[in-house]
Amino acid sequence: MIEYRTLRIALLGAGSVGSQVAGLLLRHGEELATRVGARLELAGIAVRNLDSPRDVELPAELFTTDARELILGADIVIELMGGLEPAREYIALALSSGADVVTGNKALLAHHGPELFDLAEQVGAQLYYEAAVGGAIPIIRPLRDSLAGDRVDRILGIVNGTTNFVLDRMDTGGDDFDDALATATALGYAEADPSGDIDGYDAAQKAAILASLAFHTVVPLSAVYREGIASVTAADVESARKAGYVVKLLAICERVIDAETGVEGVSARVHPALVSRQHPLAAVRGANNAVFVEAQAAGSLMFYGAGAGGIETASAVLGDVVSAARRHVVGGPGVAESTSADLPVFDIGKVTTRYRVTLEVLDRPGVLAHIAGIFSDHGVSVEAVEQSASDGEGGGTATLVIGTHTATEADLSATAAALAAADAVVAVQSVLRIEGE
Amino acid sequence: MIEYRTLRIALLGAGSVGSQVAGLLLRHGEELATRVGARLELAGIAVRNLDSPRDVELPAELFTTDARELILGADIVIELMGGLEPAREYIALALSSGADVVTGNKALLAHHGPELFDLAEQVGAQLYYEAAVGGAIPIIRPLRDSLAGDRVDRILGIVNGTTNFVLDRMDTGGDDFDDALATATALGYAEADPSGDIDGYDAAQKAAILASLAFHTVVPLSAVYREGIASVTAADVESARKAGYVVKLLAICERVIDAETGVEGVSARVHPALVSRQHPLAAVRGANNAVFVEAQAAGSLMFYGAGAGGIETASAVLGDVVSAARRHVVGGPGVAESTSADLPVFDIGKVTTRYRVTLEVLDRPGVLAHIAGIFSDHGVSVEAVEQSASDGEGGGTATLVIGTHTATEADLSATAAALAAADAVVAVQSVLRIEGE
Repeated sequence: MIEYRTLRIALLGAGSVGSQVAGLLLRHGEELATRVGARLELAGIAVRNLDSPRDVELPAELFTTDARELILGADIVIELMGGLEPAREYIALALSSGADVVTGNKALLAHHGPELFDLAEQVGAQLYYEAAVGGAIPIIRPLRDSLAGDRVDRILGIVNGTTNFVLDRMDTGGDDFDDALATATALGYAEADPSGDIDGYDAAQKAAILASLAFHTVVPLSAVYREGIASVTAADVESARKAGYVVKLLAICERVIDAETGVEGVSARVHPALVSRQHPLAAVRGANNAVFVEAQAAGSLMFYGAGAGGIETASAVLGDVVSAARRHVVGGPGVAESTSADLPVFDIGKVTTRYRVTLEVLDRPGVLAHIAGIFSDHGVSVEAVEQSASDGEGGGTATLVIGTHTATEADLSATAAALAAADAVVAVQSVLRIEGE
Repeated sequence: MIEYRTLRIALLGAGSVGSQVAGLLLRHGEELATRVGARLELAGIAVRNLDSPRDVELPAELFTTDARELILGADIVIELMGGLEPAREYIALALSSGADVVTGNKALLAHHGPELFDLAEQVGAQLYYEAAVGGAIPIIRPLRDSLAGDRVDRILGIVNGTTNFVLDRMDTGGDDFDDALATATALGYAEADPSGDIDGYDAAQKAAILASLAFHTVVPLSAVYREGIASVTAADVESARKAGYVVKLLAICERVIDAETGVEGVSARVHPALVSRQHPLAAVRGANNAVFVEAQAAGSLMFYGAGAGGIETASAVLGDVVSAARRHVVGGPGVAESTSADLPVFDIGKVTTRYRVTLEVLDRPGVLAHIAGIFSDHGVSVEAVEQSASDGEGGGTATLVIGTHTATEADLSATAAALAAADAVVAVQSVLRIEGE
C-alpha cells in the first residue's frame, strides 16, 4: 500500500457544478490519487446557506459558511460560486496564500482576469479555468498549450447552449423566437431570466476569455461587440435556409489588419451570423457547443461537446484539479498567462465581413438603381440581388435580398443606416453577417 | 529590451514535418521567446544525408550528420526521423542527458513507449508526443490533462487520413477500392507502398497510444486487433449507404466487462465499421481525422482537424516544444505518464458489438430457417433480415443481409465461421461491425 501525501481541496459553492465536483471527488478519490500521486482530500465546501437543497447528496459535516477559514487551510481552491464578489476576493485570498485556484467563473475572468493572473504570477501559483468556456469541452488547454507554437488567426465559437438550442429549434422546427425560447425554458435549457444568454452577455464573456488567450493580448469585455438573438425572426431563418445557410450565434475572435494603417490588431464580437450548411459548425445541434479554430500552421480544428450541465462541466473542473495537484506534487511555480503579444484591440468597425440585407422596398421603377447606389456610395460592392413581390399587406412593395462582397464593418453599417433612411425603403427587415468562409 | 535565457533545441530529421518545424522555429523565434520567457535556439538539425532536398529552405550550417553530439548539447530534442532505430536510441540518450524530448513517432511509442516513459520519469525529464496521433489535432493533451479527472469509457477515432480519403471517395463517388486508392496515390494522400495505412498498421499504433493514455494502462501494440480496408467493396459501401450508414476505418478503445467473470478490462481494435450517418464522425470527410471520446462525466466530445501534413503536424510539435520550454523556465521535474489503473487488456473476443452480415445463399425453401439456426446456435440474436434475389450470374441464389443484436465478438466470429462452412451459403460477401451507437 503506497502512502500518499494529502492535498487539501476547498470548494466554494455547491450549485449544479459544485455539487457534482464534490460528488466526483468523494467517489473517485482513490482512483484520482493513483493518477496524481497524492490524496485529494475535500476539506470542506463553503456555501451561503447550509440548508439549500443540493443536486448530489453530500456529507453535512463538509459544509461551512466560513469560506475564509476554509481557503486558508487549502492547497487547491475550487471557486464555483459565480458572480463577481465575493468570488474575486476569495480567489485573491487563495492565490495570495499560495494555493492554486480552479474556477469556472467566466464573468469574473472577463471582468478581472488580468489582475488575478498577475497576482497568480507574482506568488508562483496558477489559476485554471477550463470550465469557464465550453463546459466539458477542452478548449482552454488546447489554445494555451497545444497551439502555443502556432498563430491563431480566427476563432468561431458556438459557446452558448441556450441560444444554440433556440436557433436550432427555429431552424429545424420552423418555430418563431418566442415559441423556441418557451420550449428552451420548459426543457431547462434557458433560465427564468434568459437575458444573459439571449442577449449575448454570456457569449461575450467567453469571447473576451478566448481572444485574450488565443492572441496573447488582454481583450477586455468592454471591447467585445455584442448583439443577441432576440431580433432573429422565423422569416430570417427560413430565408437563410433557402440560401444554404443556418443562423448561429457566434463568438468571433480574429486578427484584423486595419485597412487604413496596415497595423495588425485583434477583435472580438458576438452576434447572430449566417453559416454555410457545409461548415462543420452548421452541424452543431441543440444545446451543444463547438469552437472552430483557424491557425496558420494547424489549419482548421474543431472542438465539440456539451457546453453546459453540472456533471459535464464538473469534468472540466476536475481535469484542472488534477493538473493543479500534479503541479503541487512535482513542485515549481505555475506558468504565467501569456499576454506577450499585446496587440491593439480594434472595435468592430475595422472588421471585414459580408452582409446579407433583406429590405421591403417600394415596388416602382428606379428603386433598385437607387438602392444599388446607396451601397456603392459607401464603397460596398454588391454580389447578388434577389427580388420578389412582397406577399405582405403592404401592397405595392417588394422584397429585396442583397448579398455584399467583403467590406469593412464601418462601411457596411453606414450602408445599413443609409438604407434605413432612404424614402424607397419601407423597412430594413434584417441585416445578417455571413461568417466562416 | 528583455534579455532571455537561451534554450538549445536539437532537431533530428528534416522530412516533411521536420523541415516545417525548423522553418517555424526560425521564422517565429522572437514571438515564441516572448511567450515562453526564453529564447528557443535551433542548435542544429541531424540528418542522414546532408544533400537530400528539403520542403523548406534552411541554412546549410544547421545541418549535421552527428546526431549524438547535437543531442548532448541540447535542452530539448525533437525527434522526427521516424522508424524504431536509431530513434529509440537517440531519445534514450536525450532523456538520460536530462533533455526533454518531443516526438511524433507513433511506431516507436507503440513499440517502446513504456520503457521510454519510465526512463523519462527516472531522470525527471518529460516525453511529449502530441504529433503522434491526429496530426495537428490536440488530442494527447486533452486526454492526459483535461480529462484526467474523468473516466473515459470509449474512444472512436478516425486516425488515418489515407483510409478515410479512400473510403470517402468510395462513399461519395461510388469508386471501387482500387480506383479510390489510385486517386489517393495520385493526389499524394497515399504513399507508394500504402500497406501501412491501408492494412491498419498506422491506426493500430495510434490505438495503442490512445488506449494506454485514456485508460492509464499499458496497452501493447500486440494487443490491438487489426483489420484493414482492402476487402471493403463498392457493394459494401453502397449497401451501407442505403441502410443509413457510412463505412469508416475506426480505432476503437473501450472499457469492456468480461461477460464470464464480471472483471473490467480494456480493449483496442482497428477495423472498418458501419457508422450511422447521424453520428458526428460520419461527417468527417476526405483526409481529415477526428477523435470522438465518450467520458462518464463529460459526455461525448469530438476533436476534429487535419490528421497529417507537414505544416499541420509541425503545429503540434511546436506546441509541445513550447510546453517543454515553459517547463524548463519554471523548473521542476516532468509529470510522469500515468499507468496507475493497470487494467487487464482483453483481446477482441470479449468485446461486444453488432454485426451486419451479407450472404449469398442458395435460393431454396428452408435456407432462411437454417441460417437463422446458425445464429441462434451461437447465442447471437438476429435483429433484422433483408432478402433479395441475387442479380449476379449465380442463378438460383439470393442475397441475405442480416443485422444482429449486440453479442460478444467471440460468438459473432464463431457464427461467421459457421456461416462460411454452411452448405446453403454460397459466399459470405461481407461481415461488418456497427459502431458508435
